[in-house]
Amino acid sequence: MEKIEKYSFTVEPFHVDFTGHLFLGVLGNHLLNAAGRHSHNRGWGIDQLNEVHYTWVLSRLSIELDEMPAQYEHVEVETWVESVMKLFTERNFLIRNADDGRIYGYARSIWAMIDVKTRQPSNLLELKDGDILRYVMPPDEKPCPIDKHGRIRLTTPTHLRDIDTYYSDVDINGHINSVKYIEHILDLFPRTAYERHRIRRFEIAYKLESYLGDTLSLYGEPSTETLTEATDAQPCRYQIEIRKHVGAEAKPAGETVVQALVIWE
Amino acid sequence: MEKIEKYSFTVEPFHVDFTGHLFLGVLGNHLLNAAGRHSHNRGWGIDQLNEVHYTWVLSRLSIELDEMPAQYEHVEVETWVESVMKLFTERNFLIRNADDGRIYGYARSIWAMIDVKTRQPSNLLELKDGDILRYVMPPDEKPCPIDKHGRIRLTTPTHLRDIDTYYSDVDINGHINSVKYIEHILDLFPRTAYERHRIRRFEIAYKLESYLGDTLSLYGEPSTETLTEATDAQPCRYQIEIRKHVGAEAKPAGETVVQALVIWE
Repeated sequence: MEKIEKYSFTVEPFHVDFTGHLFLGVLGNHLLNAAGRHSHNRGWGIDQLNEVHYTWVLSRLSIELDEMPAQYEHVEVETWVESVMKLFTERNFLIRNADDGRIYGYARSIWAMIDVKTRQPSNLLELKDGDILRYVMPPDEKPCPIDKHGRIRLTTPTHLRDIDTYYSDVDINGHINSVKYIEHILDLFPRTAYERHRIRRFEIAYKLESYLGDTLSLYGEPSTETLTEATDAQPCRYQIEIRKHVGAEAKPAGETVVQALVIWE
Repeated sequence: MEKIEKYSFTVEPFHVDFTGHLFLGVLGNHLLNAAGRHSHNRGWGIDQLNEVHYTWVLSRLSIELDEMPAQYEHVEVETWVESVMKLFTERNFLIRNADDGRIYGYARSIWAMIDVKTRQPSNLLELKDGDILRYVMPPDEKPCPIDKHGRIRLTTPTHLRDIDTYYSDVDINGHINSVKYIEHILDLFPRTAYERHRIRRFEIAYKLESYLGDTLSLYGEPSTETLTEATDAQPCRYQIEIRKHVGAEAKPAGETVVQALVIWE
């Protein structure tokens, strides 16, 4: 079995933003599909693992692009496992144009395997007698030339928006869908940001699950409204944090569900 | 050239709701993709028509299903043109399981062709010397055994929710995306509705465009909260209307953007 899995898609008309480029959340969805297929074809798919009461949990996702695929372009994703530790595995992605081969960019992700009953992380090196190690491609074999995930830490966050969560926000487990968080974060930036700039790098850290009916409070540092004043000479880094409020819980308390970093150029 | 176009997809993990079934909005997206491909392969695609300053506008979409496809199922959509009138064309869809052939249901849609510059409808019978008539399959040749679109008319609507529109809501034309309206409408129903019932038929009428930054006011008749009290013996019909508010315009004024009918069982 090859260590790399290829996954192809076409950029559909309803998946592009007003600039004609693929929504980052939809790209994230395709990356997660590619990951799911890679795992499945090697006996490590969620459907196969559920039988033994384990499931994959996405912890970090970082995407860095020189260019975002445009409407009707044919895209090919390669995904592979860069490393496996006891409690985490690193999975990388290469995103290229399927017709001319030019590389749009790369992505990195970190996953844990948890026991569905106890919600505790499992030892990846012990599951299936270390079978996962057969698929590892270290950086010297298959490079992924973007930075690893950084540390996200907001010191003086500004409260930006509260959103309620509904039916369309949740996945089959009743959790707010990983891709929906990306949408909600990108919706914090004004129209003019997308007209004048582009997102070079997007990082997201999934800390805790939230559920249908939770209220999500979104915080930013600095406030996302400032982006339109930025100049091209000044790269703009925005840290975002999402906290959840359950039921009638007092605000502004709330646990951190998701943190993100958005770098514009 | 065949009159029917086939379009296949697999129900992806991130495209199912908490019951494990495909989101209706995602199904709508696939139907629109199937329509786009059918048109394109016959020289009537939006990309081809833009060169001559025409584009398709979706006016009505009605979906009726005995069963909603579930996660990982393979789905095949057939689409064809049932009729062409001067200003409208009717396009139908059959939705089936690609493995065992069972039919999930059908859909109907109505489209107009408009001149991009004047925004006026064009005469479909005159464009390209009536070429479109070559693809018509009347009902006796290819039946679509669900009702045509009904009339939606709210007499004593209840105001349910106001929503702001953001970056992720709009398409390449800067209009609120047809699929996003479906999501916003389905989000009006409580979790228990989806736990106890299923949507048998969904109709939507696109009346007017709305744009990034517009506030949308959603109205229902009856109020969608009543659904959880319904019994299985009583089919539940909900009419929904979305009106838009532009800038500081006084509420509750606002033009009707979308109307919908949701029938539960």
